[in-house]
Amino acid sequence: MAAPALDFWFDFASTYSYPAAMRIRAMASAARVEVRFRPFLLGPIFAAQGWTTSPFNLFAAKGRNMWRDLERICADLALPFRRPEPFPQSSLLVARVALVGLHDAWGEDFCRAVYRAEFAHGQRIDDPETIRAILSDLNVDPADALAAAHESDTKERLRSETAEAQRIGIFGAPSFTTADGELFWGNDRLESALAWANRAL
Amino acid sequence: MAAPALDFWFDFASTYSYPAAMRIRAMASAARVEVRFRPFLLGPIFAAQGWTTSPFNLFAAKGRNMWRDLERICADLALPFRRPEPFPQSSLLVARVALVGLHDAWGEDFCRAVYRAEFAHGQRIDDPETIRAILSDLNVDPADALAAAHESDTKERLRSETAEAQRIGIFGAPSFTTADGELFWGNDRLESALAWANRAL
Repeated sequence: MAAPALDFWFDFASTYSYPAAMRIRAMASAARVEVRFRPFLLGPIFAAQGWTTSPFNLFAAKGRNMWRDLERICADLALPFRRPEPFPQSSLLVARVALVGLHDAWGEDFCRAVYRAEFAHGQRIDDPETIRAILSDLNVDPADALAAAHESDTKERLRSETAEAQRIGIFGAPSFTTADGELFWGNDRLESALAWANRAL
Repeated sequence: MAAPALDFWFDFASTYSYPAAMRIRAMASAARVEVRFRPFLLGPIFAAQGWTTSPFNLFAAKGRNMWRDLERICADLALPFRRPEPFPQSSLLVARVALVGLHDAWGEDFCRAVYRAEFAHGQRIDDPETIRAILSDLNVDPADALAAAHESDTKERLRSETAEAQRIGIFGAPSFTTADGELFWGNDRLESALAWANRAL
């Protein structure tokens, strides 16, 4: 019998995707739920509703609360936290590299390493040097992975993943979707999404 | 020694304030936290950032997810749920009546009854008849309570509560604030807010 399945949709620039990405693998294993990592780009989805940057930049009070809330959440989870500067950073290249890795065996480790670089170490994830260093640490050849990331097939895959996210009603990250069509939005819905995936079996 | 304190900020039109209002009293008692109900109006705060209605109406995908999410949350809490029509409804009059009641002994019961009328029974909370029926059920004289709600002192108190909410950075409801200045936003942060209030003691 197939394990219950959950799709984990995230953007590397998304703040609440950091704690979600760091804890989902262990939680899904404990819940015996099969998780699929699905990086996508929030930018085109925000742009479609007239936003040219993160809503956390557009709405100041909401943004202030988010940074403090994320700090409290990371403290509770014992996750190091440092506010990325600038925010948001382009997640285009890391998302393409992640798609290459998720097709191979190193995708999830790459995703977690990108989030750590951005939110724990204050590195620029839009800097190819950061990406090369992460790949080297994972014993992946940076030149090969970056070449694959720049192939038109990879670019097209990221576009179609983003279009699929928008089609199924995703408007923020992280989001979690179940095989029976439920959409859960936010790191704080991860527990409910796993419970639903199990219940839906 | 004073009990740890938490302010519970809510708007009667706010969807996620419904589960928060229904569960906060019992949870606060269990946590030995002193809760103060503080109704305010989100409308002027939304208007200040250019929104003329609820963001759940302005952003369609977000709104769709909110209704489904709220339905799931209420099912988990065994709270009856019915989507109010229209949404949002003016919360001006009920908020004024609530301030009168919170100055007296029947305020919290009134608040819960308003949320039930709106989200469980599909009644119009902007209809004075609904308010009169609720007050009668609570053995409060509707004419007296409504007269007090229309006094300029009550109107001014609601304006100043709303101004205070905005001043301390509140941008949505429900919100919870602690004596040491932490702001927690959302029904899903109630547990964290209570834990913080206790820790801050």
